[in-house]
Amino acid sequence: MNHPTSILITNIGELVTHDPELGTFAGAALVVDGGTVAWIGPTAQAPAADEAFDAEGRAVIPGFVDSHSHLVFAGDRAGEFQARMAGESYGAGGIRTTAAATRAAPDDELAAGVARHVAEMRRQGTTTVEIKSGYGLTVDDEARSLRIARGFTDETTFLGAHVVPPEYADDPAGYVELVTGPMLAAAAPYARWIDVFCETGAFEVDQARAILRAGEAAGLGGRLHANQLGPGPGVQLAAELGLVAVDHCTHLTDDDVHALRDAGTVATLLPGVEFSTRQPYPDARRLIDAGVTVALASDCNPGSCFTSSLPFCIALAVREMGMTPAEAVWAATAGGARALGRTDVGVLTPGNRADLVLLDAPSHVHLAYRPGVPLVARTWTASSA
Amino acid sequence: MNHPTSILITNIGELVTHDPELGTFAGAALVVDGGTVAWIGPTAQAPAADEAFDAEGRAVIPGFVDSHSHLVFAGDRAGEFQARMAGESYGAGGIRTTAAATRAAPDDELAAGVARHVAEMRRQGTTTVEIKSGYGLTVDDEARSLRIARGFTDETTFLGAHVVPPEYADDPAGYVELVTGPMLAAAAPYARWIDVFCETGAFEVDQARAILRAGEAAGLGGRLHANQLGPGPGVQLAAELGLVAVDHCTHLTDDDVHALRDAGTVATLLPGVEFSTRQPYPDARRLIDAGVTVALASDCNPGSCFTSSLPFCIALAVREMGMTPAEAVWAATAGGARALGRTDVGVLTPGNRADLVLLDAPSHVHLAYRPGVPLVARTWTASSA
Ligand SMILES: [Zn+2]
Ligand SMILES: [Zn+2]
Repeated sequence: MNHPTSILITNIGELVTHDPELGTFAGAALVVDGGTVAWIGPTAQAPAADEAFDAEGRAVIPGFVDSHSHLVFAGDRAGEFQARMAGESYGAGGIRTTAAATRAAPDDELAAGVARHVAEMRRQGTTTVEIKSGYGLTVDDEARSLRIARGFTDETTFLGAHVVPPEYADDPAGYVELVTGPMLAAAAPYARWIDVFCETGAFEVDQARAILRAGEAAGLGGRLHANQLGPGPGVQLAAELGLVAVDHCTHLTDDDVHALRDAGTVATLLPGVEFSTRQPYPDARRLIDAGVTVALASDCNPGSCFTSSLPFCIALAVREMGMTPAEAVWAATAGGARALGRTDVGVLTPGNRADLVLLDAPSHVHLAYRPGVPLVARTWTASSA
Repeated sequence: MNHPTSILITNIGELVTHDPELGTFAGAALVVDGGTVAWIGPTAQAPAADEAFDAEGRAVIPGFVDSHSHLVFAGDRAGEFQARMAGESYGAGGIRTTAAATRAAPDDELAAGVARHVAEMRRQGTTTVEIKSGYGLTVDDEARSLRIARGFTDETTFLGAHVVPPEYADDPAGYVELVTGPMLAAAAPYARWIDVFCETGAFEVDQARAILRAGEAAGLGGRLHANQLGPGPGVQLAAELGLVAVDHCTHLTDDDVHALRDAGTVATLLPGVEFSTRQPYPDARRLIDAGVTVALASDCNPGSCFTSSLPFCIALAVREMGMTPAEAVWAATAGGARALGRTDVGVLTPGNRADLVLLDAPSHVHLAYRPGVPLVARTWTASSA
């Protein structure tokens, strides 16, 4: 996409930069040039640009960085959702339902689904999105899932180790060999990251370690689903391996919290999952107070959490997890960027990508103060996804 | 607004009618003529019309009927919201803050605010909205609040008895006399309903009874805010007076529940309030199982709940209040209509208003399954508000 012109945005009622020097300030202006933030300062001192846009006192924040989603799938699990809300318990079994539908779907159907959900995210202010495979669970279906995802984002994650597929039910070790061998080889060209669902009913900690090490040897960065459904060793594994992020973190011991802090591993919280599975929420306050970096992401997937809305996750984080609105907005932008090892997004500062969101509100606080209301008035982004 | 042409909507993946005969069915078509539902049936049997619209398998539901909102106000209480989320308790005092700002605001500012929020509601599928006064609290400011609201809806409610204003702090009985005398006389020409905030810190049950009786004598229907912050006699008063609806109903005894059932009074639940004040939710399941009619509404106001989103309230009702998605959608449409004594909205049946919502989803279940996601693709309505 070409950016032939520069744009001057003036009268920003509240500009949230997440730049330690610039902070959050009123009456701001911002110049976008060539898809990059070129200048930030008071509206009264703004330089000229090719185009002008008057924010009319509304707030501007960095575009959301959704560091955890599962968008390559076919089918719908609305029936499972209804059953769960009527009192049934959630296990990992439903993933196999989606895997069967995904394997059966042609490429164009899968791509159309990703396009639809990425566009839906964009309308809600998400300008960077990570997309995982994990509903193929064969060499070919994992590779094509990632190839399709790569058409929408560079932040693709190989999640062959999402669940053991039915055909390996009696031979989980054989499935781990497949994942670390031919499946990884086929997936790696299309992936930046490798991920494992380390949970009772999915993969054991030693299997997760082997898979993450194999991924690292193939040039992929490691990330992990852990400690979602109960306490477990996954978070400690993430710290041991120095992963950039470990996701869910709902059930943590004090040792887990200290390990995250000491390793500098980001705890990515996914409160849409707890909302949609009626489980207790992770304690963001405890993590932040202990010095752990917290990110918020959607986990958008057709089973445990089918929201694509980071504004909704921010409202939940404030209501349920002890975060302030400012902390929650930071976690859904700069925090998500940290969880992807990125410094060019999530923070509005000269030289960074001009991924930004104009809110239909005077302040970022309204994202929590006005839950459920679509407050994204407009999004600017440096590229198409 | 003129409706010179008829419109045929075909290929409705799921049509939720709330008509006991028609129910919810797949592959439906619907004809709108002159702002009225003219025909409903299978797509294959659809008659001709002037215009055609292909729903492409998406769901159509009745437009939402939001039977409880406070949209005539000035100012913002984002700071109070932040303080509350940081652990401070909620009282009725904040209403006075908004009253001061509202009194000071010119008519056009108040009308612009109502217009903005009504449009925001419309984008989220609300096609009928009740709007209360209650931030004027003087004869002139209550009357002008209702006059402004009447520009947007016929469902206007005189809520002079929202809270005792500061100038009557030492003479609450004098304020009740004002409300039932000159204020009611000035407000009645612009109001269909009269309402009282019957709660500790606001109005006592005997004051509420006197105000509601005075309103009835002036030709207004009675409704009530009650049992929000704790148990109290308000719900019993609503049943005693045979009111069409009593709103909040968070703290109910078994006697309260039976009284509502026996009186046929609708219990309007406002879960956005509990979300935004971090209070326990009302128990919709208990009410429904006891045979009470339940409605869902937003309570959109700048203090205790600044959501305008009935989809969000539906998601909360399913997650937190034991409602099924079908019950929650019914409560936000047909239930809201019952709470306003209306039969022409909330139910799609030939002869009723053609107020309907096309969802970006194959089923109404997605309103709960996909929380926070703006799923309203398009709205048709018989009139402009
Ligand atoms: Zn996940
Ligand atoms: Zn209210």
